[in-house]
Amino acid sequence: MASVDEAMLRAIALAARGLGTTSPNPVVGCVILDASGAVVGEGFHAYAGGPHAEIVALAQAGDRARGGTAVVTLEPCDHIGRTGPCTHALVRAGVARVVVAVADPNPVAGGGAQTLRQAGVEVEFGVRGAEAEAGNVAWLTSVRRGSPYVIWKYAATLDGRSAAADGTSMWITSEAARMDVHALRGTADAVVVGVGTVLADDPRLTARNLRDGTLAIRQPLRVVVDSAGRTPAEARVRDGAAPTWIATAADVGAGPQGRVDLRALLAALYRRGVRAALLEGGPTLAGAFLAAGLIDKIIGYVAPKLLGAGPPALADAGVHTIAEVIDLEYAEITQVGPDLKFTAYPRKREEG
Amino acid sequence: MASVDEAMLRAIALAARGLGTTSPNPVVGCVILDASGAVVGEGFHAYAGGPHAEIVALAQAGDRARGGTAVVTLEPCDHIGRTGPCTHALVRAGVARVVVAVADPNPVAGGGAQTLRQAGVEVEFGVRGAEAEAGNVAWLTSVRRGSPYVIWKYAATLDGRSAAADGTSMWITSEAARMDVHALRGTADAVVVGVGTVLADDPRLTARNLRDGTLAIRQPLRVVVDSAGRTPAEARVRDGAAPTWIATAADVGAGPQGRVDLRALLAALYRRGVRAALLEGGPTLAGAFLAAGLIDKIIGYVAPKLLGAGPPALADAGVHTIAEVIDLEYAEITQVGPDLKFTAYPRKREEG
Repeated sequence: MASVDEAMLRAIALAARGLGTTSPNPVVGCVILDASGAVVGEGFHAYAGGPHAEIVALAQAGDRARGGTAVVTLEPCDHIGRTGPCTHALVRAGVARVVVAVADPNPVAGGGAQTLRQAGVEVEFGVRGAEAEAGNVAWLTSVRRGSPYVIWKYAATLDGRSAAADGTSMWITSEAARMDVHALRGTADAVVVGVGTVLADDPRLTARNLRDGTLAIRQPLRVVVDSAGRTPAEARVRDGAAPTWIATAADVGAGPQGRVDLRALLAALYRRGVRAALLEGGPTLAGAFLAAGLIDKIIGYVAPKLLGAGPPALADAGVHTIAEVIDLEYAEITQVGPDLKFTAYPRKREEG
Repeated sequence: MASVDEAMLRAIALAARGLGTTSPNPVVGCVILDASGAVVGEGFHAYAGGPHAEIVALAQAGDRARGGTAVVTLEPCDHIGRTGPCTHALVRAGVARVVVAVADPNPVAGGGAQTLRQAGVEVEFGVRGAEAEAGNVAWLTSVRRGSPYVIWKYAATLDGRSAAADGTSMWITSEAARMDVHALRGTADAVVVGVGTVLADDPRLTARNLRDGTLAIRQPLRVVVDSAGRTPAEARVRDGAAPTWIATAADVGAGPQGRVDLRALLAALYRRGVRAALLEGGPTLAGAFLAAGLIDKIIGYVAPKLLGAGPPALADAGVHTIAEVIDLEYAEITQVGPDLKFTAYPRKREEG
């Protein structure tokens, strides 16, 4: 026996197992209860092109779904994409009731509830809506506004520097923090850096398992914001380990000072299926994103170190006086190995 | 009934109530147990010139101290200073046993245990020694090396800046963090700043109760490190609210580039009775202290804000390449209002 509330928490936990591999689709989890309330099926959406959560759970439940309840984190889809519509599958299986946490904001896939009701299925919304929304925040935010959810990740010393005066930076943060970053990359659809970072550090930008050096199964798109096309032919980001896009101003469109137009860049990434993007620097690009209000979330790794000189982790963000300061709110502060890790969200500024 | 262990923990808690008002003396707490182990007296050293912890506790215990145990956080003094020696008072009161957490490192006041033993009193050392040491760390460290214990306190944004590009900085951190700083000043014997901070911000550097604006009962010595004597006659640090020392190179002695010699400065402060000094900036002075290895503890208030430009909280600390980075260790990370507060200690560097 499981209550609908318990089943939804289980479905949310199942959904999270798809993080990083479902884009451009959302993560979804589903639990099927039979007519007596027993759990008879579970499923989650694991990768784009693979079966949806409802289909997996219904297959497991078989006939026991008849007269039962489907508990789903997101409104079931109603369109014929790479897989058939889940609404039809639910109706065919004889499900009497569908309980949904969050409505589908997607104009193409939405409308599932209406179809189900027309077929005589009872539909209820909002159970554990806040938790399900949080579990799918990147996808929901990006689909609602048609632009990727952007997380800025940086690593710095306590005095805000990302390298010493002579440019050396190996390593500011600990191996534990660097492993955490690789796990974070594994949940993103794209990793974005400025060409300055490529020229200075020649990073691979792949998601690796630092324990054994192996590449993660799915690699995020590597994006170099490179207004004038200065990425060297032999740069590591051009290797075959993951797809790469050198985004030039000629390619994307130019903004102020001939630089890549960042809103156009994000729109292009969205069209390529990117829902969650991880911005990894450098200081100039991060400043430009922040100044344009394009950052949704900030994850910082702050090493217990002091340099007193050297390049800062953040350069010009359009702030000239204290009244213009970019206000954040800490959401979480933890330690990762010897380093401090924080998560923060920009406070929305009043429009002038 | 109380065990000696419980009595020592109580004595350590009592001792802490004297923090900030006992210099140049240590904080000390004392609990007297009678012959059956019942608590019959408690005391702590509240201010320099006032009665010692043992005297307060013995007065409360009266005749019940006879045949009992005195539990003291620090070895009882054996010299006739402003008050008579505690050893004599313990012997006169008929105490049979003295349990001490930490030996007195002070060459003048030390030797108490020997005197007590010669008078037939049993003396035991080391009970809760680590806890008592931690509660008295500033005093013990400073007396052992003849130089004040230096805490560097700073406030900055996440990107390590203490003001915006135009110099404005009111306020980087929250009122809750600023109240915390005033409480911290109340535990220090001296507050040290560079003349640059006086010229830029004209601070009062007093310990105030921010709730009602009143001055704390005891004010730390205000010290301006001012090599060339540029502190204006009308600067607020020269008001009558607290004692002030404008430390010039002519006064203290000059180090490199004609700047105040920091080791000579600290030696002079020690001679003036300063055991715990709070260094409050600015960036140049903090860098010089760090470069010289003169910081014992760092307390930072990091506001959830980004500036991307403006003066850093820390300037040149003698670090040119990443191998020379100043390594710290976080001891505590908490939130004070919306701000992050950390405590960290420099790791001792290997001598070359």
